[in-house]
Amino acid sequence: MLQQKFKIPFYYSDLQKERLSQNIDLPNILKSKNITLEFGNKTTSAGDTAEIQKRFPNLYGQKIIKLIEGEHQVEPRPLKVGVVLSGGPAPGGHNVIAGIFNLIKEFHPESTLIGFKDGPIGIIKNDFKKITEKKIFLYFNQGGFDMIGTGRDKIEKDKEFEAALKTVNDHKLDGLVVVGGDDSNTNAAVLAEYFKSKGNNTCVIGVPKTIDGDLKNEYIETSFGFDTCCKLYSEQIGNIMSDSKSAKKYFHICRVMGRSASHIALECALQTHPNAVYIGEDIEAKQIKLFDLVDDLIQLIESRFMEKKYYGVIIIPEGLIEFIPDMKDIIEQINHMFGLDKKRSWVIEDFKNYLQDRITTLESQKKENPNLESEYQKNIERLELFKRLPPRITETFFDSRDPHGNINLSKIETGKLLKWCARQKMLERKEMDLRKKFQCVTHFFGYEGRCGLPSNFDATYCYALGTTAAHLIIHKQTGVMSVVNGLTNPIKDWTAGAIPITQMLNLELRNEEWKPVIKKALVDLNGRPFLELQENLKEWRMNDLYSSLGPLQFSGESKDQTTKTIQLEQKK
Amino acid sequence: MLQQKFKIPFYYSDLQKERLSQNIDLPNILKSKNITLEFGNKTTSAGDTAEIQKRFPNLYGQKIIKLIEGEHQVEPRPLKVGVVLSGGPAPGGHNVIAGIFNLIKEFHPESTLIGFKDGPIGIIKNDFKKITEKKIFLYFNQGGFDMIGTGRDKIEKDKEFEAALKTVNDHKLDGLVVVGGDDSNTNAAVLAEYFKSKGNNTCVIGVPKTIDGDLKNEYIETSFGFDTCCKLYSEQIGNIMSDSKSAKKYFHICRVMGRSASHIALECALQTHPNAVYIGEDIEAKQIKLFDLVDDLIQLIESRFMEKKYYGVIIIPEGLIEFIPDMKDIIEQINHMFGLDKKRSWVIEDFKNYLQDRITTLESQKKENPNLESEYQKNIERLELFKRLPPRITETFFDSRDPHGNINLSKIETGKLLKWCARQKMLERKEMDLRKKFQCVTHFFGYEGRCGLPSNFDATYCYALGTTAAHLIIHKQTGVMSVVNGLTNPIKDWTAGAIPITQMLNLELRNEEWKPVIKKALVDLNGRPFLELQENLKEWRMNDLYSSLGPLQFSGESKDQTTKTIQLEQKK
Repeated sequence: MLQQKFKIPFYYSDLQKERLSQNIDLPNILKSKNITLEFGNKTTSAGDTAEIQKRFPNLYGQKIIKLIEGEHQVEPRPLKVGVVLSGGPAPGGHNVIAGIFNLIKEFHPESTLIGFKDGPIGIIKNDFKKITEKKIFLYFNQGGFDMIGTGRDKIEKDKEFEAALKTVNDHKLDGLVVVGGDDSNTNAAVLAEYFKSKGNNTCVIGVPKTIDGDLKNEYIETSFGFDTCCKLYSEQIGNIMSDSKSAKKYFHICRVMGRSASHIALECALQTHPNAVYIGEDIEAKQIKLFDLVDDLIQLIESRFMEKKYYGVIIIPEGLIEFIPDMKDIIEQINHMFGLDKKRSWVIEDFKNYLQDRITTLESQKKENPNLESEYQKNIERLELFKRLPPRITETFFDSRDPHGNINLSKIETGKLLKWCARQKMLERKEMDLRKKFQCVTHFFGYEGRCGLPSNFDATYCYALGTTAAHLIIHKQTGVMSVVNGLTNPIKDWTAGAIPITQMLNLELRNEEWKPVIKKALVDLNGRPFLELQENLKEWRMNDLYSSLGPLQFSGESKDQTTKTIQLEQKK
Repeated sequence: MLQQKFKIPFYYSDLQKERLSQNIDLPNILKSKNITLEFGNKTTSAGDTAEIQKRFPNLYGQKIIKLIEGEHQVEPRPLKVGVVLSGGPAPGGHNVIAGIFNLIKEFHPESTLIGFKDGPIGIIKNDFKKITEKKIFLYFNQGGFDMIGTGRDKIEKDKEFEAALKTVNDHKLDGLVVVGGDDSNTNAAVLAEYFKSKGNNTCVIGVPKTIDGDLKNEYIETSFGFDTCCKLYSEQIGNIMSDSKSAKKYFHICRVMGRSASHIALECALQTHPNAVYIGEDIEAKQIKLFDLVDDLIQLIESRFMEKKYYGVIIIPEGLIEFIPDMKDIIEQINHMFGLDKKRSWVIEDFKNYLQDRITTLESQKKENPNLESEYQKNIERLELFKRLPPRITETFFDSRDPHGNINLSKIETGKLLKWCARQKMLERKEMDLRKKFQCVTHFFGYEGRCGLPSNFDATYCYALGTTAAHLIIHKQTGVMSVVNGLTNPIKDWTAGAIPITQMLNLELRNEEWKPVIKKALVDLNGRPFLELQENLKEWRMNDLYSSLGPLQFSGESKDQTTKTIQLEQKK
């Protein structure tokens, strides 16, 4: 054990200390001293094959790889590897680094690992720190990405690629491990292709990270962080449910992270059994408009009131607002308006005027061109909807912009929007009694989930992913992602390997340019997890079958449960 | 073990099930089959002695009681006991009920326990449910107050007292256990006095509950729920700290429950080591005005920016705004205005006009009466301050009223107030660079803490409190609170007994009437916990000595830690 060697900082909590010396098991295959690669069939791409082939001439068509037991054919040599963390933190990142470190040291004791600081910008600037045995010890099984920091920069421009090449050349890196989500892994493939095209042999390996759970497909069972994060949010929601049925006077709207996909909301619902959950993908598929959704909410409230249940719990995903068709439309219109003058501080009234002006123009134009009638009507509806929205929420649309100059959607308090719209509708219907009794508390479970101490599952999964990444570097693979599968089996039986990133790519329009991207995995409305939810929602609506997951345990009987999502997805 | 006897509902989580069958230890004294009472000296009251004596002729002067080993002098008889939960839920309530149940059954197998539903209103309406062995089994070690519900009603009016007397008479109750905070325990004493005055022999026993931790004094070491709640909030704050130093771009303002006292903020700060914490009692003692506090915040931000730390974590108590003298004054003025027409829907402009009118009047009056100059100036300052406050926050002052017709202070988002005021001040100072880089996220940790699965400490403490309450009923004591002390010692050495409620009473003005109340325990600025905080804050401000408490563990090494507050208070 390492723990005798290094002094633990005095400010670590007892549990942090306890976790430091917690051994993490590896799948049998990764414990083996004799690992070789088994290559599968050649791959293509997820779409736009010709174009992906053209953009990735060196990588396209690579084979799927499986690590298998076999004569170790690689001569030990000191490796130099770099690692970078990209995007939002997710529980387990430090164990990925530990997995890489321990394996390359085992491969050759003079191997070294460096961490590029604060995300890909660290590669561009060649800003790095050496990762020591002490660091590995002090961050093992710990939450956060703070060992080396993280960032959202991308390596995109020619100069940035050149700088990155210079960095890996200067260090003579054998490998570069990019830990990130869909965009970062796409970037890893682009970088791998670029290095190859320049005759550089640094292997670029991706590791699937995202709490949102939207980086998965038939080759990747889950991204790391999703497990811990859902457990932390489910703990909170379970506590709120217990409070709800104890105090019996509040409806709680719990918004959980998940901007592009609603996997977290789905998993938390499967864990906790709320009275309602609005899955973005479902709302979009059914084209449910804002006030129709509000009607459903009011109907829930009313029917519970009828049974003297003046309380309830509803889960919504962070990105719900973008899945609601008429709200998505409003957002697009506002973003369009922002684009007209990017420096201007637009306010609510501007948008109303913007729509009104358009209506006035269309009104006169449509006399000559009757085809404009529908466009005219659409704008009238837009304005009406916008005016009906609570100003307290709409004013926040104009507060700040995201890096693309658009509405900063994560700042929009969708829970409050629903609450105020429900009040508004009750007022319109003159349902004073309903309105008086309707008390609603909104919650957002966000940052507190991204950096929790990783669950046993994430700690193990990440350690295996890091170890696998190191094996891939030893075997000189590039442009692939480290994958560990069979995750509902006992750990010893998990498999390890790699999947060519190009296989997951297609082209998407981003800022008016066609870019190769890994398709985000949305909630599959025909998948088992969603169907299981659908089956149960009716019963959960009125009966309070709330489940309290409780705080994540590292020991005891319930310590090793994985997500319901993955259990259902893999159910035979 | 009971668990074979009853079917556990399918929707219980694995951890809930595991906790059901977790044995809870009792202090040695409470395991004894031979318990007798040792009486201490006669007591007086915390203040207003003559008046308290007059109001409690039957109870005043009772002796402090300690349970000791000794010949059991009470003949077994079937007891009938009622229990009521009062106020906001706190982790451990169900174990209080289990403690009562198991002991009265042990005392005599035909004893019965009933639970009054949804708080004291259940006593008034004689709305109750029988508590069965199955219920005790299914709620053991579980969070929430949902076995019988809770409520905030008080028994105050003559009719309500008569109804309560009728209820206890109808049931021929030997005892009534009131689980609640300072107000509910005061109410328990009033009820005990009333029953005695009417010749009724039902023993009324209080149990100290409140997550806020403000029900404690030299006889009561802590109230139950505080331990679990602080651990849950500290877990969240620790995660946010880890996120903060990973992403390096956000200041997080974490507001934790604690309206009248800042014990939770203090405990969470001692656990997690934030860069700053504003303890309400300290702000009030130093009479720090709002924008002076904002200045301190900006100074913190600036000095961290100087070291390229574009992040940080600040903890504030829920009730901070009432401790800031100039905000307290504004709130009082608004409440006064509300009082002028209780049915009117007042808005921001009304208050500005209200102040302006007063200024205009005073301006002319002071010509004849120069004494009014200071009052005139004060109103000018008030109006200036109010105008300087962000309208997005001030408009919420006018949203809803509390039951007394005052501003609903718990709804005021103080974290956002500080954030917007900081932005405002940066704007005034034209510190555009500072303002641009300052990104702030606010959090409120509230309801998710009140109903967590109780920590081992709270589970044990509550079970002991309930058991003690039952002993007190067996020994026909009334108007006392169940107390269990020596809580930093091993469980086996904890002591048990009772403290006369009248001893803790003084008179306070409530709604223009002098009422007996238990004095709330505020944070003692000369106490060890606060002094310890003070000593460390300077170091925590710039250095990130964040501590991540992690999820509450029920097994493993760190499972049995109690709060830093109680550890420091009892440090020899």
